[in-house]
Amino acid sequence: MDATERFLNACYGRPVDRPPVWIMRQAGRYMSTYQAVRKQHSFLEVCKTPELACKVTMMPIDQLEPDAAILFCDIMVPMEVMGLDLDFRPGPHLEPPVRTMGDVDALKVDGVCDDLGYVYDAIRVIKKTLNDRVPLLGFAGSPFTLACYSVEGSTTRHHHHIKKMMLTQPEVLEALLGKLADVVAEFLGKQIDAGVQGVQLFDTWGGILDEASWRRFSLPFAKRVFEALEDRGVPRIFYIQNGSHLLHSIKEMPCEVLSVDWRQSLSEVRRIVGPKFALQGNLDPALMTTDDATIRAAVKAFFDDLESTQGIVVNLGHGITPDATLPAAQALVNAVKEFGPKAAK
Amino acid sequence: MDATERFLNACYGRPVDRPPVWIMRQAGRYMSTYQAVRKQHSFLEVCKTPELACKVTMMPIDQLEPDAAILFCDIMVPMEVMGLDLDFRPGPHLEPPVRTMGDVDALKVDGVCDDLGYVYDAIRVIKKTLNDRVPLLGFAGSPFTLACYSVEGSTTRHHHHIKKMMLTQPEVLEALLGKLADVVAEFLGKQIDAGVQGVQLFDTWGGILDEASWRRFSLPFAKRVFEALEDRGVPRIFYIQNGSHLLHSIKEMPCEVLSVDWRQSLSEVRRIVGPKFALQGNLDPALMTTDDATIRAAVKAFFDDLESTQGIVVNLGHGITPDATLPAAQALVNAVKEFGPKAAK
Repeated sequence: MDATERFLNACYGRPVDRPPVWIMRQAGRYMSTYQAVRKQHSFLEVCKTPELACKVTMMPIDQLEPDAAILFCDIMVPMEVMGLDLDFRPGPHLEPPVRTMGDVDALKVDGVCDDLGYVYDAIRVIKKTLNDRVPLLGFAGSPFTLACYSVEGSTTRHHHHIKKMMLTQPEVLEALLGKLADVVAEFLGKQIDAGVQGVQLFDTWGGILDEASWRRFSLPFAKRVFEALEDRGVPRIFYIQNGSHLLHSIKEMPCEVLSVDWRQSLSEVRRIVGPKFALQGNLDPALMTTDDATIRAAVKAFFDDLESTQGIVVNLGHGITPDATLPAAQALVNAVKEFGPKAAK
Repeated sequence: MDATERFLNACYGRPVDRPPVWIMRQAGRYMSTYQAVRKQHSFLEVCKTPELACKVTMMPIDQLEPDAAILFCDIMVPMEVMGLDLDFRPGPHLEPPVRTMGDVDALKVDGVCDDLGYVYDAIRVIKKTLNDRVPLLGFAGSPFTLACYSVEGSTTRHHHHIKKMMLTQPEVLEALLGKLADVVAEFLGKQIDAGVQGVQLFDTWGGILDEASWRRFSLPFAKRVFEALEDRGVPRIFYIQNGSHLLHSIKEMPCEVLSVDWRQSLSEVRRIVGPKFALQGNLDPALMTTDDATIRAAVKAFFDDLESTQGIVVNLGHGITPDATLPAAQALVNAVKEFGPKAAK
C-alpha cells in the first residue's frame, strides 16, 4: 500500500496496512535545514517563492519519511490580499485591526484568491517534485480563527477584542465571518484545482468559545467552507484546539476527518462523535522534546488505547514547536511504522 | 441575610435570598485607585505590607460592594520562602527554575510557612477593617500549578519543561508536588488560623493535562491539601481553568465548591458533577470590557440557564483583566443584586 492510498483510506475509514502519520508544521523551526533557509529569507518570502516553499515542504519528507506532505504556507496569507498589512515577529501581526463595520466593508473579497497565485504555483512545483511519493495537503484557517487574528491584530492572551465584538456588535463579526468564509472556500477550492489531495481547516481558536457562541460564530462559517468543497473528491480535515467542550456540536461539521488536541484520548473522542469521522491526532507535542524510548512508549500506548486503527491518522495534537528535536520527530514516525502494522485491527 | 451568611450558605448548598457575587482578582489593575497605589509600591511590596494589602483588598469592597473579600496576595509567595527568587515583570518569574532532583531537594519546606507572617498579619488587619461587612477568603495555588511556574520559570505558551519532566522524570515531579502539597496545606491552614472564612485553591494550569496525567500529577496533591483542611469548618473552593475534559475526575476533589471557566454552562457542569458541589463562576471576563446593557443581559441569561440558584456563587470564569472597566464590574455586581432575588428558586 503506498502512502497516498494509506492516507486516503484512513481519511475515508477504509482498511489500511497501518495508520498513516504526518506532523502538523512538520517543516518548521525545529529543523536546522529550515533554519538555514530562514537565515537567507523571511518567513513570507519562503511562502511566496514556489521553489523555496517546495524546498522547505520537502525537508520533512526526506528527513522523516511521513505519509503526507503539507504545503508550506501560513493561514494568514488571505488576510494580506483582503487588504491588511501582514507581518511576522515571529507571530502574525495584522494592521489595521478590524474593529468596525467600516473596517469589514473595506476588506476585499472579489478576485482576491487570484492574488494568491504563488500558493497554487507552489502546489504545482511541490506535486511535481513529490512525484506521487506521498499525498500533498492544502490548508486554511477557519473563518472564526482568521477573524480572531484580524480583530485582535495579533495573538493575544484573552482575545477580548473579538469577544467584545461578539458581545456588542455581533452583526459586524458576522459580516466579517461571511466574507472570510467566501474567501476561504474559494482559496481551498483553488488549492484543490492546483493539485492538493486533502485540505485541513484550522479552527485553532475555536476552543476559546462556549458552545452557544461556537455554534453561532464558528460552526456555520466553517460548515459553509466545507460544503463548498463537498464534491471535490478530497478528504476534508477539521482541526480544533482545546475543543473538548464542543465535541457534541463538532459532530455537525461536514467533513471526513476530525483532528483534535491531546486533552482527550481518541477513544473518548470516538465515543462522543461516533463512527462517522476518521480521527487525526493527538500525541502531546511536548513528546517531541523527549527521547526515543519515551516516544516509542507513547506511540505504543496510543495504539493500545484504540479499539480500531481504521479511520486513524497519527499526528500531534497541535503543530510541532521550535523546541522539538529532529530525532524525536523521526522517532515518532518510526514508532508508527513499527507498531502500526501490529496494532492494525 | 448578611453577606457572610449568604456566601457560606451558597457554598454549603443551603437556601439563600440570592446567590452571592464576587470577582476573582477584584482588586486589580483595572482600578484607578489600585494603579495609584502601584505607582508608589511594587506588586510584592503591596503583598508584603499588611496595611497596603488591606487598603487594596478593601477597594473593590467599597467600590463594587460584592459579597466577599479576597486577600490581596499572589499564589507565588510560597515559592519565595521555599528558596526561589520571585519577581514580577508583570507576570511571575522564578529563578532558578526547578529541573532536577537536586533542585527539588534544595527547596525548603520545614518552617517556611512561618516566613509568610506578612500574609497572616494582612488577614488580621483586613478582618478588623472589614468588621464582618463581608467574609474574607484566603487562597493558594494548587501543587500542580505552582510546579508549573517553578519548572517553567515563568508563564510559557506550551509548558514543555514541566511536560518533559512529567514524561521523562516523573519521580522528580512527584517529589516536587509532594513538597508543594505539604507547604500549601500548611499555608492555607495558617490563613484559616488568622481568620479567613473560606479558601480557594487555583489549579490554573491543570487544564493543559489529559485526564490520566491530571489524575496522577494534580488531583492527588490537590486532594492532599484539601483533606488536611477537612475539619477546619471553612468552605474549600477548587478552581480550574479549561477543565471541561477533566470534570469526571474533578468530582473526586474533597471540596465544597467547584469554580469553572466560561466554556461550559453551569447547568452542564452540574449535570456532570452532580448535586454534591456548589458551583462558582463562570461569566466570560470579556464581559467586563462591555457595557451595562450587555452585562445585564448576560447575568439574566446566566440565571435563566440555572435550574436552581441554590449552591451558586456568581463570579467570572477567571480573574478580571486589566482591560476591564470599573463601571462594568459594578454592573455585574448590581445585576446579580437585581436579578438574583427574582431568580432565587
